[in-house]
Amino acid sequence: MSERRLEGTGVTPLSGVGTVIWYDQEVDLPEPPAPDEVDPDAEHDRFETALDAAREELQAERDRTAEEVGEDEAAIFDAHLQFLDDPQITGAVEDAIDEGLPAEHAVREGFEGAIEQMEAAGGRMAERADDLRDIRDRLLRIVTDSERLDLSELPEGTVLLAEMLTPSDTAQLDPERVAGFATAKGGRTSHAAIFARSIGIPAVVGVGEQLLEIEADAEIVVDGEAGEVVVDPDEATRERAAESRDVEIRTERVATADGEPVEVAANIGTAAELEGAVAQGADAVGLFRTEFLFLDRATPPDEDEQLETYVEALDAFPEGRVVVRTLDIGGDKPIPYVDAEEEENPFLGTRGIRRSLGPDAELFRTQLRALLRAGAEGDGELAVMFPMVATVKEVDRSLAVIEDVRAELDEDGLAYEMPELGVMVETPAAVFMGEQLAERLDFFSIGTNDLTQYVMAASRQNEAVAHLHNPRDPAVLRAIDRAVDAAHAGDAWIGMCGEMAGDPELTELLVGLGLDELSMSAVTIPDVKANVVEIDTAEAREFAEQALASETKAQVNERLEE
Amino acid sequence: MSERRLEGTGVTPLSGVGTVIWYDQEVDLPEPPAPDEVDPDAEHDRFETALDAAREELQAERDRTAEEVGEDEAAIFDAHLQFLDDPQITGAVEDAIDEGLPAEHAVREGFEGAIEQMEAAGGRMAERADDLRDIRDRLLRIVTDSERLDLSELPEGTVLLAEMLTPSDTAQLDPERVAGFATAKGGRTSHAAIFARSIGIPAVVGVGEQLLEIEADAEIVVDGEAGEVVVDPDEATRERAAESRDVEIRTERVATADGEPVEVAANIGTAAELEGAVAQGADAVGLFRTEFLFLDRATPPDEDEQLETYVEALDAFPEGRVVVRTLDIGGDKPIPYVDAEEEENPFLGTRGIRRSLGPDAELFRTQLRALLRAGAEGDGELAVMFPMVATVKEVDRSLAVIEDVRAELDEDGLAYEMPELGVMVETPAAVFMGEQLAERLDFFSIGTNDLTQYVMAASRQNEAVAHLHNPRDPAVLRAIDRAVDAAHAGDAWIGMCGEMAGDPELTELLVGLGLDELSMSAVTIPDVKANVVEIDTAEAREFAEQALASETKAQVNERLEE
Repeated sequence: MSERRLEGTGVTPLSGVGTVIWYDQEVDLPEPPAPDEVDPDAEHDRFETALDAAREELQAERDRTAEEVGEDEAAIFDAHLQFLDDPQITGAVEDAIDEGLPAEHAVREGFEGAIEQMEAAGGRMAERADDLRDIRDRLLRIVTDSERLDLSELPEGTVLLAEMLTPSDTAQLDPERVAGFATAKGGRTSHAAIFARSIGIPAVVGVGEQLLEIEADAEIVVDGEAGEVVVDPDEATRERAAESRDVEIRTERVATADGEPVEVAANIGTAAELEGAVAQGADAVGLFRTEFLFLDRATPPDEDEQLETYVEALDAFPEGRVVVRTLDIGGDKPIPYVDAEEEENPFLGTRGIRRSLGPDAELFRTQLRALLRAGAEGDGELAVMFPMVATVKEVDRSLAVIEDVRAELDEDGLAYEMPELGVMVETPAAVFMGEQLAERLDFFSIGTNDLTQYVMAASRQNEAVAHLHNPRDPAVLRAIDRAVDAAHAGDAWIGMCGEMAGDPELTELLVGLGLDELSMSAVTIPDVKANVVEIDTAEAREFAEQALASETKAQVNERLEE
Repeated sequence: MSERRLEGTGVTPLSGVGTVIWYDQEVDLPEPPAPDEVDPDAEHDRFETALDAAREELQAERDRTAEEVGEDEAAIFDAHLQFLDDPQITGAVEDAIDEGLPAEHAVREGFEGAIEQMEAAGGRMAERADDLRDIRDRLLRIVTDSERLDLSELPEGTVLLAEMLTPSDTAQLDPERVAGFATAKGGRTSHAAIFARSIGIPAVVGVGEQLLEIEADAEIVVDGEAGEVVVDPDEATRERAAESRDVEIRTERVATADGEPVEVAANIGTAAELEGAVAQGADAVGLFRTEFLFLDRATPPDEDEQLETYVEALDAFPEGRVVVRTLDIGGDKPIPYVDAEEEENPFLGTRGIRRSLGPDAELFRTQLRALLRAGAEGDGELAVMFPMVATVKEVDRSLAVIEDVRAELDEDGLAYEMPELGVMVETPAAVFMGEQLAERLDFFSIGTNDLTQYVMAASRQNEAVAHLHNPRDPAVLRAIDRAVDAAHAGDAWIGMCGEMAGDPELTELLVGLGLDELSMSAVTIPDVKANVVEIDTAEAREFAEQALASETKAQVNERLEE
């Protein structure tokens, strides 16, 4: 039998080979018996018992996730627990039992209405429908006594396949045991993909329907670099995948062959990822997204809770810098306690600093208070950056808020330290206003995912324009080049924290463009550091000039291959 | 009584004063009688009679619109006629009659389900819900024998107020009689607004709920320049509004005071607008949007129908140029016979040339065939431009399609002429790739509405980010400056056809930035021509340099005021 290759989206530049275990979240039910054969009292008892068992399971998973991954990730289980106590949902199940259905069929029917309602509502509500399906399937499994796959106890050498993985599923995977996973749905920016990158598991997502045809116990390779799943791999393919990557981890800072220092930093989303970042040799944290602190919970984290998290990050890098991005929500990152209207073009709407200077002004002040205090308390050097800046005025207003917060902290007699201040360069406007922004700030960090989508006018989530959404396009390279020139003209340093920064094929080009710092998923740090030390900056600059003069992305790629 | 000012969005730089007539599309119904007091047979007859009368009315309006405005605008009535024959809708009304409702209540109830369904479906379907409401209200008016306001026979000096106007309503307005209109809903880019500009009626839209409180017979001023409705205007306000604008219409081409020629052209959407463009002194058509040819009809216009329209435009400008933009749909312009999926961020999705090189390849070829043939047949000089270009490759592929079409026309033995070829500059990518695009093309035309939304990452349809969506932002000015330099470096001419071009306050700035052509709504042409002849290009250039060096939009505005 010769090998078959299925294409998907690679999310980690790692490969693994192993044996397929399917993670089936759905439970198949037989036809229900006739209503007169069902004893409603007994079925009500079965449902009550299942509810109790589900609560216990969720609580246990919540506690384990809080301990092993982080409090922020654990919060999703709280939402699930709340649904179990929602009388609208449990009432619908009980009604269905009263109408003569056994508990399992009643669960299926009782949830159906609520799921449909939320899906019809679209947008954020539709996302809650996925949560409801999760809970329904959990209840179905319990009430039918179906066996459950314990994701934390998979046999060594397992490749886990699933239609989709929730963040809580992914959080349970043990990188020592799991050789990789692949899912039919999901994209590079799904939660499962982000987790896979942060814990370093080979993973391919979005493989499509064809994944579902792979049988359990098949041997497959998950190639996160090529974005492929190989079924029944040839000997050669297996060997390549099984070879552990032979890259030295450099914990020291690196410089090009001719001595130009390049900071190589980690992007993290939670404090739980700090350890991995240090282990992979990160010099610093170049992007600490703070959204995870705010997601999947009923109320915002208060100043002290945030302070603790930021100090934890600073203490993990006593000799390095931690760049914290202030809350960047709107668009694709809804938060329950935030009053955000649905927008027709969320990526062109009220996001990032626009919310912090508008409806989320209070959240912004609290976050800045926590950050300034953390700067005084933690070991490392704090830097704070603002997302989605498009005008000089937004920066001036943000700086004014910081002055206000300082006055408040003085009044409260609380210790604080001013951090370095910067902006994400992700709107074309920030590129065009680079000189004026650099005069006011210490640094820029280019967010290539968003910058690419605005420069190319192509959504990063829309498959139909994926061919246009590519940071290697010469238009994007020219925007980066202009941002670097503007930063240096204003004596600001400039880094990059978009995905482009972690692509080892592009290290020479990015150094040639003049970036002072590259920040990426921790797992790619060793590769990028290995590349940096080989670079001759004069050659890199020449190479960058050629790339900038290219007419098409294809020409850029040709030059990269040479 | 002192005057009261209500703010809205001005859509024409014209003012008018007059007496309010309300255009109420809705009919109020009394409570229905008890079912046993209703004779279903009689009510079925009433409904049938109303259906026939509605068909007759629609057909008559269709014919009149076709004659007075254009075949394209008339097509919307065909869609309405189809709904009258939809058994799902008429069946629902008949069922309601069978259940004991009088015809009028049955109409209201029978349409309700279909309207709700379409609204729940969202997106395009929701737009059809507005059509259904139109038809429902027409039937209600007929069946209740309510009087109908004849919009084409309004008394002279009428200011028409309405919650919203449909394109067919607006098409009936006579600019000789109507002093202006104002609506509670709608924005600058609504159909009503576009019509108001093309026929030159003072208009303010999107005034909000407060408009509904203005009483019939009140005297009001509609100030399309300030975007205000003034109720019970003071003598001074009335006089200012009543003064006819004292601007000379220049039918000759104009140049700056020091002799630099600037072409002043008209944006049009239909052949019906050609006459107005010529009358206002347009040198050329700088943007012929072709979407109206394709909208509100069941099948696409064939090659000959298009040919006729394009030739009509070319014949209207025997000494001038007509720049036709190829079909630009997707995003906010759905078309029934086009297979377009709903997208989460339509403005960052499959629009313009992306569709023409993808799913709409056949429409694109047919349009290009019609255009090349029109070039040979019409009097004026044809130019063709492609919308939403983001890469050099898209231009190369478009040029290849044109080569194909030429070969086809040769084979078919049909006469054709090669037009000038250009692109809309509306993505930041087109700005950054300007040099390479100019090498391949004859001209650029800057679409400031879209360019602004991508540069600022702020939707032009979202009120919450309206403060960011402003072409006077220095970031947008810098993008324009770079596009002009790139065009001229590649020996291409460059115009502007976004709304910015028609703002008389900006003429000097735009000439200073080096634009060779300005294209706008016909009504603003006399003002802009009057400005051009006063300009000293050296001063304008200096002024542009100052604007480009500004840090904020506020600074640009200050400099404009000086």
